Amino acid sequence: MLISCPDRPGIVAAVSQFLYEHGANIVQSDQYTMNPEGGMFFIRFEFDLADMDAQLPVLQEDFGRVADRFEMKWHTFRASRKKRLAIFVSKEDHCLLELLWQWQAGDLDVEIAMVISNHDDMRGLVESFGIPYHHIPVTPDTKAEAERKQLETIGRSADLIVLARYMQIVSPKVIEQFPNRIINIHHSFLPAFVGGKPYAQAYNRGVKIIGATAHYVTEELDGGPIIEQDVQRVSHRDDVPSLKRIGRTIERVVLARAVKWHAEDRILVHQNKTVVFHG
Amino acid sequence: MLISCPDRPGIVAAVSQFLYEHGANIVQSDQYTMNPEGGMFFIRFEFDLADMDAQLPVLQEDFGRVADRFEMKWHTFRASRKKRLAIFVSKEDHCLLELLWQWQAGDLDVEIAMVISNHDDMRGLVESFGIPYHHIPVTPDTKAEAERKQLETIGRSADLIVLARYMQIVSPKVIEQFPNRIINIHHSFLPAFVGGKPYAQAYNRGVKIIGATAHYVTEELDGGPIIEQDVQRVSHRDDVPSLKRIGRTIERVVLARAVKWHAEDRILVHQNKTVVFHG
Amino acid sequence: MLISCPDRPGIVAAVSQFLYEHGANIVQSDQYTMNPEGGMFFIRFEFDLADMDAQLPVLQEDFGRVADRFEMKWHTFRASRKKRLAIFVSKEDHCLLELLWQWQAGDLDVEIAMVISNHDDMRGLVESFGIPYHHIPVTPDTKAEAERKQLETIGRSADLIVLARYMQIVSPKVIEQFPNRIINIHHSFLPAFVGGKPYAQAYNRGVKIIGATAHYVTEELDGGPIIEQDVQRVSHRDDVPSLKRIGRTIERVVLARAVKWHAEDRILVHQNKTVVFHG
Amino acid sequence: MLISCPDRPGIVAAVSQFLYEHGANIVQSDQYTMNPEGGMFFIRFEFDLADMDAQLPVLQEDFGRVADRFEMKWHTFRASRKKRLAIFVSKEDHCLLELLWQWQAGDLDVEIAMVISNHDDMRGLVESFGIPYHHIPVTPDTKAEAERKQLETIGRSADLIVLARYMQIVSPKVIEQFPNRIINIHHSFLPAFVGGKPYAQAYNRGVKIIGATAHYVTEELDGGPIIEQDVQRVSHRDDVPSLKRIGRTIERVVLARAVKWHAEDRILVHQNKTVVFHG
Repeated sequence: MLISCPDRPGIVAAVSQFLYEHGANIVQSDQYTMNPEGGMFFIRFEFDLADMDAQLPVLQEDFGRVADRFEMKWHTFRASRKKRLAIFVSKEDHCLLELLWQWQAGDLDVEIAMVISNHDDMRGLVESFGIPYHHIPVTPDTKAEAERKQLETIGRSADLIVLARYMQIVSPKVIEQFPNRIINIHHSFLPAFVGGKPYAQAYNRGVKIIGATAHYVTEELDGGPIIEQDVQRVSHRDDVPSLKRIGRTIERVVLARAVKWHAEDRILVHQNKTVVFHG
Repeated sequence: MLISCPDRPGIVAAVSQFLYEHGANIVQSDQYTMNPEGGMFFIRFEFDLADMDAQLPVLQEDFGRVADRFEMKWHTFRASRKKRLAIFVSKEDHCLLELLWQWQAGDLDVEIAMVISNHDDMRGLVESFGIPYHHIPVTPDTKAEAERKQLETIGRSADLIVLARYMQIVSPKVIEQFPNRIINIHHSFLPAFVGGKPYAQAYNRGVKIIGATAHYVTEELDGGPIIEQDVQRVSHRDDVPSLKRIGRTIERVVLARAVKWHAEDRILVHQNKTVVFHG
Repeated sequence: MLISCPDRPGIVAAVSQFLYEHGANIVQSDQYTMNPEGGMFFIRFEFDLADMDAQLPVLQEDFGRVADRFEMKWHTFRASRKKRLAIFVSKEDHCLLELLWQWQAGDLDVEIAMVISNHDDMRGLVESFGIPYHHIPVTPDTKAEAERKQLETIGRSADLIVLARYMQIVSPKVIEQFPNRIINIHHSFLPAFVGGKPYAQAYNRGVKIIGATAHYVTEELDGGPIIEQDVQRVSHRDDVPSLKRIGRTIERVVLARAVKWHAEDRILVHQNKTVVFHG
Repeated sequence: MLISCPDRPGIVAAVSQFLYEHGANIVQSDQYTMNPEGGMFFIRFEFDLADMDAQLPVLQEDFGRVADRFEMKWHTFRASRKKRLAIFVSKEDHCLLELLWQWQAGDLDVEIAMVISNHDDMRGLVESFGIPYHHIPVTPDTKAEAERKQLETIGRSADLIVLARYMQIVSPKVIEQFPNRIINIHHSFLPAFVGGKPYAQAYNRGVKIIGATAHYVTEELDGGPIIEQDVQRVSHRDDVPSLKRIGRTIERVVLARAVKWHAEDRILVHQNKTVVFHG
């Protein structure tokens, strides 16, 4: 259960008392107050509930009273109900491969509903994992039509879109269908090197550390809420191909972490920033 | 307020309800369950209380009922009541200097009650900060007597002993007076290189990364609960003096972090391990 | 060309003059002196040579004079002649997968001659990459026989054995056939947690950082020359399965780096330590 | 000795032969070729020379022939001749303190000729180290005059200006007197957050990692050649004061490393980028 609301005394007491009375055992809770004097308050509860199927709807209905009292925005998620992913990919396979590998190893507890690509190159790979592969070409002329097709193909079978090095800009029409539910991996340490060819930009600027950034997609290019970043040291000896090679490992790890945290309902978005509860 | 107890349903609800009824506003809470089925449960509450002087004793007394019900071990600390440090040092000054510097910059919110050293070298430095300096020489023959003198000098004016590169082994008699309240910085990545000359040991083993470890002191040499560790990459080019130089920066940072977290009552010790709440 | 010899004036001049006279253009050189007063001297030259096939043997023969003069141990390697790997694996596939993936992506410029395993589990995976897979079971009783079979299977078709989470101790008979040419990944930050179950050991000790170590295999268990190490921060919340999961990513990256450096002839071994030239 | 020239066969041979004939023993050499086909070539030799006072001028004069032949730009520096620093500071003392502390500990082998500040706050501190302190106030109106005074105060007694959190923009007139000899610490991970208040910018963007950058000062604000960068992980819990506190440690370390490398003549600048030889 993820809750955000204006801070005020008694919130933790009210919610934990409510959960206790409804038979829920709190396994984990994390909270964050932007500012005790009138700031926003964010809390995440992880709880067990006996007879979940029957009791959760009751709990959800009853919680309305508590939520109204504190002007809460809230969601409950069932950990046993896996997030369903639609992964978008273009020609670089490393981010996709990492997700498939972690998923197969049991480290990424999601359902991979499908892979959608503007190229047909990775069909064999993806289908060998038993995952449907949809080739939907995109050209400047057919972009609107292609996006309509993408949304139709996804239908109601995915909760999250992951752009695993998908080299097309996603238009607002898709974004508004998946608000804060499209994760992109940008191959630079944002906000440095927004836009195209970030490794070439990094090489030209002569940076000593490169990075990658996973973020939710918003209408502003590479400007959405940052979920995770990581970096690696480089030197003057690393040319652009070498930066790309080093960067691939960072991109893989950063994207996989962001997807994992989203899948575990650890992320709250507020004013273009994320609160990530690692507890 | 730090609490540890066997896990059981209703703990968070009971405590947060209790705090709410006593007028406390929870600013931050962190919890950790070793194992929901009968494991230990640890929780830290940070709360504001109007009229703290009058209300805290009432709250503390009343909390006994809750604590008994859940077999809790608990402590309350007042954030406004700064921890008082006795810093022990020998001949290397970098860890001491870092603590003094962070304290002066306002980054380390403690009171430095005194510095005790088995050498007289740093008197001028320490006294220039307005801090009392006690030179208590230690030889194999006078060790017991020296430690008696140390404890007498400290008296009741310190809550925490910090061994900032103090090169004497502290005997059980001192440890039992300050259980989990003596922090040592060991200049290796424990449990690698226990004991003397860890940088020489690291050089001989040819490691590619060196580190430092801050831990509570127990009777087992370099075996107490680890609070914090950090590392730095090195290469075959780094000889022992170079490792020492690189290590100094790690030691300084790691010790200062550990002292800061202790001072902020973020650390619980359970079975020779620490739970550190960073929330 | 990798050279080690006692340090003395004129070595760089003599070798670079020699190479120049033989038409070799030095692309990269790296050197390291343990101690200018009578220590060891290590140098690595990377050079281009027109008509390599004809000229290299001439150069190698002529170099004897220079080598004798300075008591050099030296090797030349042709970058165009890829190292041939025999990868040993047991039941955990992540290190093997990383090597296969980097090899397929062109990031690891080697030839993978075969995979040998004491289990048959990964046959399908390995063969799908077009790589021969040999299942050679090992039991305490059949160990000597199994190792004889391994050596026979390898024959002269591999230059390097990579133990990619191979959970059997390799006996001296195999090691002496591949001196400083067997790379193992140990799933701890050596010399901490030598031997079995290092993640369980790390959990029990309560470390705040875990790591992995790639090293050449010698007769001393987990005691050979360290090639590369890396680490990741963990917390009290990470139980053994979580440490294993985090560790898998470190192991993969560290082993792949070590194999890459070996394949690029960047590593010299001296007195159980490595000199790794990153230039 | 630092050399840059167009790449061509025979450079290493010619220089090392030359040095050998002049009695110099090469202790360390590092080289870097941007592109073997006609790119730039950079090399650094560290050598011992008996009777340095008499022999170095001879060697320098004779080297002209070699230099002309390969169109070299070259410098020789005597390691025993310490770099002389003029440190500029405003109101934040942490970077200055780190330099003073490392200098006093013998880790930074330079001469600190003076500290210049637009405030008088740190006079006591600086003078207690026996270092001259010059207070030269700067206002928008008096800036040109103040800079004239700074240059006059420095005269010929410093080789390097270090801006240790000096919060004034240095004008071209000063820069051209010290080309690639002014090092600034910028409190962000450049090129992210150029200009003022980078920690506030970082907070607003919601980054998960913050950093600091040491660079040579050029006319473009925060746009000069990057010498060193480092970073630290942060979270949503870190507000601006917390980012500043964490950042202080990064700034201190990064600036001290850059100054150390400059003092050891390890840095070559080419086309707004640095080649840093760590060998």
